[in-house]
Amino acid sequence: MKALVYLGPGQIAWKTVPAPSLRQPTDVIVKITSTTICGTDLHILKGDVPTVSSGRVLGHEGVGIIEEAGSAVRAFKKHDRVLISCITSCGKCEYCKKQMYAHCEDGGWVLGHLIDGTQAEYVRIPHADNSLYHVPEGADEEALVMLSDIFPTGFEIGVLYGAVKPGDVVAIIGAGPIGMATLLTARFYSPGKIIVADTDPARLELARRFGATHLVNTGEGDPVDRILALTRDGVDVAIEAVGLQQTFDICQRIVRPGGHIANIGVHGKSVDLSLQRLWSQNITLTTGLVNTNTTPMLLKTVQSKTLAPEQLITHRFDSKEIMKAYEVFGNAAQEHALKVIISHAEHDGRQA
Amino acid sequence: MKALVYLGPGQIAWKTVPAPSLRQPTDVIVKITSTTICGTDLHILKGDVPTVSSGRVLGHEGVGIIEEAGSAVRAFKKHDRVLISCITSCGKCEYCKKQMYAHCEDGGWVLGHLIDGTQAEYVRIPHADNSLYHVPEGADEEALVMLSDIFPTGFEIGVLYGAVKPGDVVAIIGAGPIGMATLLTARFYSPGKIIVADTDPARLELARRFGATHLVNTGEGDPVDRILALTRDGVDVAIEAVGLQQTFDICQRIVRPGGHIANIGVHGKSVDLSLQRLWSQNITLTTGLVNTNTTPMLLKTVQSKTLAPEQLITHRFDSKEIMKAYEVFGNAAQEHALKVIISHAEHDGRQA
Repeated sequence: MKALVYLGPGQIAWKTVPAPSLRQPTDVIVKITSTTICGTDLHILKGDVPTVSSGRVLGHEGVGIIEEAGSAVRAFKKHDRVLISCITSCGKCEYCKKQMYAHCEDGGWVLGHLIDGTQAEYVRIPHADNSLYHVPEGADEEALVMLSDIFPTGFEIGVLYGAVKPGDVVAIIGAGPIGMATLLTARFYSPGKIIVADTDPARLELARRFGATHLVNTGEGDPVDRILALTRDGVDVAIEAVGLQQTFDICQRIVRPGGHIANIGVHGKSVDLSLQRLWSQNITLTTGLVNTNTTPMLLKTVQSKTLAPEQLITHRFDSKEIMKAYEVFGNAAQEHALKVIISHAEHDGRQA
Repeated sequence: MKALVYLGPGQIAWKTVPAPSLRQPTDVIVKITSTTICGTDLHILKGDVPTVSSGRVLGHEGVGIIEEAGSAVRAFKKHDRVLISCITSCGKCEYCKKQMYAHCEDGGWVLGHLIDGTQAEYVRIPHADNSLYHVPEGADEEALVMLSDIFPTGFEIGVLYGAVKPGDVVAIIGAGPIGMATLLTARFYSPGKIIVADTDPARLELARRFGATHLVNTGEGDPVDRILALTRDGVDVAIEAVGLQQTFDICQRIVRPGGHIANIGVHGKSVDLSLQRLWSQNITLTTGLVNTNTTPMLLKTVQSKTLAPEQLITHRFDSKEIMKAYEVFGNAAQEHALKVIISHAEHDGRQA
C-alpha cells in the first residue's frame, strides 16, 4: 500500500510499504477514506518528537471503513464506517476507568507515533472496541475527521478544563486550528465575551466569523493592556493555544482572581510562572493531552448541527498530493490554511 | 490600650496606643481574649510586606468578646463571644457572592495589614456580620484561635483545592503549622497514604503522631526518588506548604498524570514550571489565599471532636510576654514551636 513515511528529521515520503495485518484479536484493519495533517506531525517532521523512529507511518486522525476485524472485537464488523480516535485505549486499566484515555497503560497517543498511523491506505487500530466510533448515518465524513483530535482537544483541554460558564469572559490566545476548535466549542456554554488574540489579521477575521466577540492583534503593542481594557478585572478563563512562554505569560497576566488558565499548547521548554503574584489569586491552571472521552458528545453536537467542524477545512487534496498538502500546511499563515483534508479517491468503498 | 505595633522593618513594640472606636454602623469592637502569631507576621516584621505601614497594630487571628456593636450589626451583640476570621468580607460584592471572601472588594486580608489587628486588647472588625463567628457553647477558646486562619488555609487551599479523595496518595511538602493543618484536615477524606516531607526530624515525628503514614526527610538525598518509591506512578495530590522553588519542584516531579498540585506556600519569586513535561500530564495546579468560607464546617468538626486544632499549640504566653512569644515563634525550629497562644489575663470578661 501507499503511506506517508517519516524518514528522519526533515524527511518524509509517500511510498509503498507493506499493508498492516491483525496482530491481536482486539485489532481491526481500517481502510482510510479521509485523513488530515496535525501540527504535531509538523513537530515530528522537524525532529522534535524523538520517540518517532525512522520508517514510521505518520497520522493519528481519520475516517475509514473496517476491512477486517479481530476475533475479539465486539462493537465493530467488516464494512462499518468508523471515526478513528487519535487516542487508543484498552478500556481496562486504571486510567481508562477514569476516562483518562490519554494515559492508557496500553495505549494513549500511539498512532503515527509508536505504531504506524493513518496517513496511509490502511491502518491497524489496536483495542478497536474502545478506540473507534461508528460514523452516524448521513454524517459528513470530512467534518468527522475534525473529531479525531482537534475538536476533542480544544473542547476538553480548553473549554472543559477551563470551566467556561455562561456569562464568562473567555480569552483564547492563539487562533490556529486548536484555538478555533476551542472558540467553536466554548460557544456551547454561552460565555459573555470571547476574546481571541493572534498575530495574524486573517486568522483574527476568521475568528470573528466563528463567534469571537473581540479581537486582539498580539503583534501590536501590549496585548495584555488591551485585553484587560475589555474586562472589569481580568478574564474568567484564559486559554493558551500556542505553547510559548510569551503566550503563556499573556494568560497569567490577564486572569482574574478565581479564574482559570487552561494550557493546551505543546511546550518545548519550561515557563516562568509568576507565583509571587498568583499564589494569592486563587487561580486554577490545567494542562492536558486530549482523552477523547467527549467524542460521543461532540458527535451528537455535529448531528444536531450545533457544531460545524467542517468550517475549519480550508484545503482538500487527494492522497497522491499529500506531499503538497504537507507543504501547504507547513506554510499555514501564507497559505491561509487551517485544516487540510486528504482523501483516497481510489477507494471504491468511500461512499459506502 | 496595649498593642503590638509594627514600627518598620525589624522593629515591633508592645506599647500603649489609642483604643479603637466604631467607624461604620457595620463595625464592632472586640475585646481580645486570645490571639496568636502567624508566619505572615514574621514576613511583615522582616519588611517583606510593604503594604503594612509603620504604626500598624499586627495580628489577624483571635477570639474575643463583643465590647460594642454598630447600629447596623444584626448577627452579634455586646457580650457575645466571637471567633475573628482573618478575612474581612462585605458579603455583597461579586467575590463575596461566590464565597471568594479573600477577594472581597471592601475587605479581604485587611486585619493587621491595612487596618489595625488583633494583637491588642481591642480590635475594630468591619463588616462584622460577615467576618465573625459565634463561639459555640463550651468550645475550647484556644482551639478556635486556630480556626481564624491556619486551619481554613490548610483545608481550603490544600485539601479542597487539591481535591483529596478516599484512597488517594497525598504528599504534603513542608511540616510547618500550615502543613500540619493540611495533614489533620486531609484525614477527613480518608486518603490511602499521607506522605509528609520536611527537613526537621522533630516536625516529621510530630507529623507521624498527627496521622502521616510515611515521612521523608528532604534534607537527605533526593526526596523525589523516595516519594516516588512509595507510589505506583506518582502521587494523586502534591501540596506545597513552604513557598520555595525547591519545594514547588518536588511537587511538580512527584505528581502523577491527572493529579493535583495545590500550592499554599507564599512565594517571594516566580518559579520554573516544567510545562515541557507537564503539558501532556493532565494536571491541575491551584493557588489561593484562604477565603475562610469553610469556617462554619470546621467549627462543626471541632464540636464533633473530628478535629482537635489545639494539638498544634506548643507555647502559651500572657500578652505582656508577647515580645518573647515573637522571639520563640521566630526561632520555631530550635524552640520546637508550631503555634503560640497569647492570652489577656487581665480581661475579667475572658470566661464570659
